[in-house]
Amino acid sequence: MTQSHLPEQMTAVFLEAYSGASGLQTGQRPVPQPGPKEVLVKVAASAINPSDLSFLQGRYGFKKPLPTIPGFEGSGTVVAVGKATGLMGRFLLGKRVACVTQQTGDGLWAEYTAVSLNYALPLLGAVGLEQGAMSVVNPLTAVALIELAQKAGHKTVLNTAGASALGLMLHRLGQQEGVEVVNIVRRAEQVAQLQQQGMRHVLNSSSATFDEALRDLCHQQKIRLAFDAIAGDMPGQLLAAMPNHSRVTVYGGLSQQAVKIDPTGLIFQDKSVNGFWLTPWVGQKNMLQSVLMWRRAQTLLLSALKTEVRARYPLAQAQQAVADYEATMSGGKVLLVMGE
Amino acid sequence: MTQSHLPEQMTAVFLEAYSGASGLQTGQRPVPQPGPKEVLVKVAASAINPSDLSFLQGRYGFKKPLPTIPGFEGSGTVVAVGKATGLMGRFLLGKRVACVTQQTGDGLWAEYTAVSLNYALPLLGAVGLEQGAMSVVNPLTAVALIELAQKAGHKTVLNTAGASALGLMLHRLGQQEGVEVVNIVRRAEQVAQLQQQGMRHVLNSSSATFDEALRDLCHQQKIRLAFDAIAGDMPGQLLAAMPNHSRVTVYGGLSQQAVKIDPTGLIFQDKSVNGFWLTPWVGQKNMLQSVLMWRRAQTLLLSALKTEVRARYPLAQAQQAVADYEATMSGGKVLLVMGE
Repeated sequence: MTQSHLPEQMTAVFLEAYSGASGLQTGQRPVPQPGPKEVLVKVAASAINPSDLSFLQGRYGFKKPLPTIPGFEGSGTVVAVGKATGLMGRFLLGKRVACVTQQTGDGLWAEYTAVSLNYALPLLGAVGLEQGAMSVVNPLTAVALIELAQKAGHKTVLNTAGASALGLMLHRLGQQEGVEVVNIVRRAEQVAQLQQQGMRHVLNSSSATFDEALRDLCHQQKIRLAFDAIAGDMPGQLLAAMPNHSRVTVYGGLSQQAVKIDPTGLIFQDKSVNGFWLTPWVGQKNMLQSVLMWRRAQTLLLSALKTEVRARYPLAQAQQAVADYEATMSGGKVLLVMGE
Repeated sequence: MTQSHLPEQMTAVFLEAYSGASGLQTGQRPVPQPGPKEVLVKVAASAINPSDLSFLQGRYGFKKPLPTIPGFEGSGTVVAVGKATGLMGRFLLGKRVACVTQQTGDGLWAEYTAVSLNYALPLLGAVGLEQGAMSVVNPLTAVALIELAQKAGHKTVLNTAGASALGLMLHRLGQQEGVEVVNIVRRAEQVAQLQQQGMRHVLNSSSATFDEALRDLCHQQKIRLAFDAIAGDMPGQLLAAMPNHSRVTVYGGLSQQAVKIDPTGLIFQDKSVNGFWLTPWVGQKNMLQSVLMWRRAQTLLLSALKTEVRARYPLAQAQQAVADYEATMSGGKVLLVMGE
């Protein structure tokens, strides 16, 4: 530790059972000490993402021993550094950073958190702490999915849960990168909202003519790739609408249902289903690629990758914050804010 | 037409509704005239394959206008040739051939059929007409699936419906080619039967310990590819048992159920599902590859790709033949035989 003006206790949110919002409690705990190669971040804000909901429900890629502090993504200021942090630690001390937490250790829904040096990413001056708190998971997912589409030569792709923060980002980033993103939403009023934001094609999956409209569009535009955040019946509906040699890449399971697909499409039409997870995608990048990707995502945070905030809650209202986000996952992000 | 000793009428099986065996009728119809680039085959025998069942039920890759003569695969003797068949036609006249029928025209459940010159494949002298009647669909599927496994570097693969003719072929061909095929069957007595035939690993999906045994085996042997003929819950069970980065390739839908998969495996474990259909796989091969593949499959028909025959029916009993095969798809093939 290199600073000593820190309080002894902090407010934090604890997950006590893998039961969603109802498993959360807010309480006190000692401010953590940063370990070797870790920095201590005074947290300013943390986004609630679909991946947090999955984790709270025990349906994420890993579980942690309970109780644990949830929160995969946030922002704050580095107020102390641990051993073996060297030059990078000295550089980061006092800096505003975005941070993500991973498979081990506590998350970000707390006043302070100790994170690996590698997961404290300095924010550009123009990026505020609120945008910084939403600068990793969705922006890098958007960068990754558009890159996947480009590398496989797709000019137009489908995306479900299209009124989400990620849906908007995908569309705007796609426009810059020459990939048209056709967003699929679940309510008629979302169609109008997204069209006002300049989206040419928005489809409503609750409409009686959805399957037919989707099929016509996919065949006209030769759409052979879809990104899906819903699972359940949706991947099968997307595959059925797309021409032969199509693929659905599932990146979320919001419906909490098994993926259901007609085997005749797989067999006779060369259709397929796979998945996408951001963590290994980022892990495949070498250090230079990672730095460049982070810098690019940062500059885009003020434009294509900007996220609207719909509601802000203090840590003491974490249960309400999660329930609010679960009830309405579109129309802007829900943040937990701890103050600067 | 180059021969005139042919009868005017023939016995044939007609599909009158896409309702499975119950849609079949046997009757008379004029012996067809071979069109340009076609040969007329006096049919000796025709195999009933899972693809025929799918076609009879209207669940195959295409439908034909009804009534139509079903039967994708058989054998016989070329008794006449059409126009523009040239040197190849003269070579084939009088020869014993395997034949397959495709998307247009009638099938092989008849005393005579007109087939494209390209789909009348001369049989080696040592291959009898009964083996010849089963020499395309299953043998080439086995060759294709083992090739897919080899090209992707898999040393061990799973296969379902393992007591079928194809399951046995896959295992024997795999042994020759250095790919171990672990067959999954549905009844305890099939485990014993297959073990007697030299299979080291046979799993029974009806066993209470199936999921655990499959998981252990897949992790010990690092099995990351499964071929599935069943669909429904099976692809999801296979994916759940296999380690990360695994794939299920569905080549049949015997359960007549939608494929169901846990989305968390797709997202967090890089698992995927695709399909395989023999027709486009064969179509990708150039002529030399096709000739070599056919010659190789022929020589293997007497060993690795040999098929046992369990029952023989005349055309007049086509309904019973299909019902018999549907009831018991393992333990040897069911043939329709027309005599030589």
